[in-house]
Amino acid sequence: MNKKPDFGRIALIGAGLIGGSLARVIRREKLAQTVIAYSRHPATRQRIRELGFVDSVAEDIPTAVANADLVIVSVPVGASGAVAQAMAAHLMPGTIVTDTGSVKQAVIDAVIPNLPNGVHFVPGHPIAGTENTGPDAGFDTLFEGRWCILTPPEGTSENAIATVTNIWKRAGSRVDRMSAAHHDMVLAITSHIPHLLAFNIVGTVAELEDQIKLEVVKYSAGGFRDFTRIAASDPEMWRDIFIENKDAVLEMLGRFSEDLAALQRAIRWDDADGLEAKFSQTRDLRQRVIEAKQA
Amino acid sequence: MNKKPDFGRIALIGAGLIGGSLARVIRREKLAQTVIAYSRHPATRQRIRELGFVDSVAEDIPTAVANADLVIVSVPVGASGAVAQAMAAHLMPGTIVTDTGSVKQAVIDAVIPNLPNGVHFVPGHPIAGTENTGPDAGFDTLFEGRWCILTPPEGTSENAIATVTNIWKRAGSRVDRMSAAHHDMVLAITSHIPHLLAFNIVGTVAELEDQIKLEVVKYSAGGFRDFTRIAASDPEMWRDIFIENKDAVLEMLGRFSEDLAALQRAIRWDDADGLEAKFSQTRDLRQRVIEAKQA
Repeated sequence: MNKKPDFGRIALIGAGLIGGSLARVIRREKLAQTVIAYSRHPATRQRIRELGFVDSVAEDIPTAVANADLVIVSVPVGASGAVAQAMAAHLMPGTIVTDTGSVKQAVIDAVIPNLPNGVHFVPGHPIAGTENTGPDAGFDTLFEGRWCILTPPEGTSENAIATVTNIWKRAGSRVDRMSAAHHDMVLAITSHIPHLLAFNIVGTVAELEDQIKLEVVKYSAGGFRDFTRIAASDPEMWRDIFIENKDAVLEMLGRFSEDLAALQRAIRWDDADGLEAKFSQTRDLRQRVIEAKQA
Repeated sequence: MNKKPDFGRIALIGAGLIGGSLARVIRREKLAQTVIAYSRHPATRQRIRELGFVDSVAEDIPTAVANADLVIVSVPVGASGAVAQAMAAHLMPGTIVTDTGSVKQAVIDAVIPNLPNGVHFVPGHPIAGTENTGPDAGFDTLFEGRWCILTPPEGTSENAIATVTNIWKRAGSRVDRMSAAHHDMVLAITSHIPHLLAFNIVGTVAELEDQIKLEVVKYSAGGFRDFTRIAASDPEMWRDIFIENKDAVLEMLGRFSEDLAALQRAIRWDDADGLEAKFSQTRDLRQRVIEAKQA
């Protein structure tokens, strides 16, 4: 084993569930001599200090990124451009910047124009998470056995890509590479629409009369509780995801809604055979998810 | 402790996930001198024999229910009327019939007119289950800590209700009582609509082109995998639920679809504040589910 850390200094912009989990991996794997974190909320910065999973906490972005070899941005995707602007003048040439956002094309469009020449941006997205948020929610095995997707634009330094790939491998992830546009379409259906449906049904229940609402909570084991877990995810993060991945989300939502209208019609007209055929089709996909060890 | 079993003979019509789990509870709790099961498929009957969780397996319904003190019907709800017809002439006066179907008003309407006078029908619904089906899927702790809802029509024998209540308590359940119509409305939103959404999104994915489908499976940890689990539930059972609870399902689906259209519009028009407010509203309900110990 190499005794010298891969990096002199790693800066984390955002150290909640994802950034905080990565910080714990970086410490466990001894990937850096120094790790510094910045969070925009003073209370969160204080909590990061108390938890002690980084060496120091910066009060602003320029201080955080000064002299960093690697900057990891884990913020709601709508803030990516502002973060890039705030750090641009303080990055050393050769620094690698990566992110963990759930939308990739919009992040690339917001970040790249703001970075100086000689700084490498490697956009990334770990397909991992829980419904919990904040620095307390992080843990060092969050990424184990999960995929991380990198979407570097054409011309990105292969060395920088290899460096970021290695971090994710040390976190226990498998790493894939695809275009940002393709990523955004696949994630719209695997993640963004499921979350939208969960937020929506929990919202529908929230507007029922109080008596029924109490009972929905009481009997939620019938299926609803899984949706409440998904719908407990961070509101600000998801607000940004839907707006920043609008095109793919609206396209997939259109398909979903057409299919739902067809199912609704089948129920109204007692189309038992049609319903059973539709419901049988879905078992096969579950089997494939289990075989892909994602269940 | 009372050494004598509560029942001489219990007959199970259907012994899959729910009936098979109850059979295991009945044996563990020594609730009957004899337990006999019937299943409509010969292969399932053979498998029940091999598993050995009942004393004997009947080849037809009349044989199963002959001399039974208690009959537990756990079949797709659309078959309830036919099962009642098949057993009616073979039931002893005083026999208690109960069921475990996920829809209650339609089952009551199908069963009661077919039962002879002197036979007590106590409709029930345990809010418990997994995505697995068949006699192998059952286990004796399935109902522990879960609710069972009884929906006896007015005039049902209180003794019969108490007897059925006791069985569910021995299974570890808490027992509630409400009208069938109310049950069907609450379950439409807590269980039937969540399942419909899961079936629907998995169906939408099943119709995507093969390359994207492979990737959806690969990256399903982003949220989709929870839906594939729900959508792996028994197609025939769910076909019947949607048709037999059509009114409540279409009513709740209408509310859901209106809300989804509003969310879609908020995404299209970049209504960040509206989205965040909506997504924040849903966290509170999750907290209530956790507090109700249903998570």
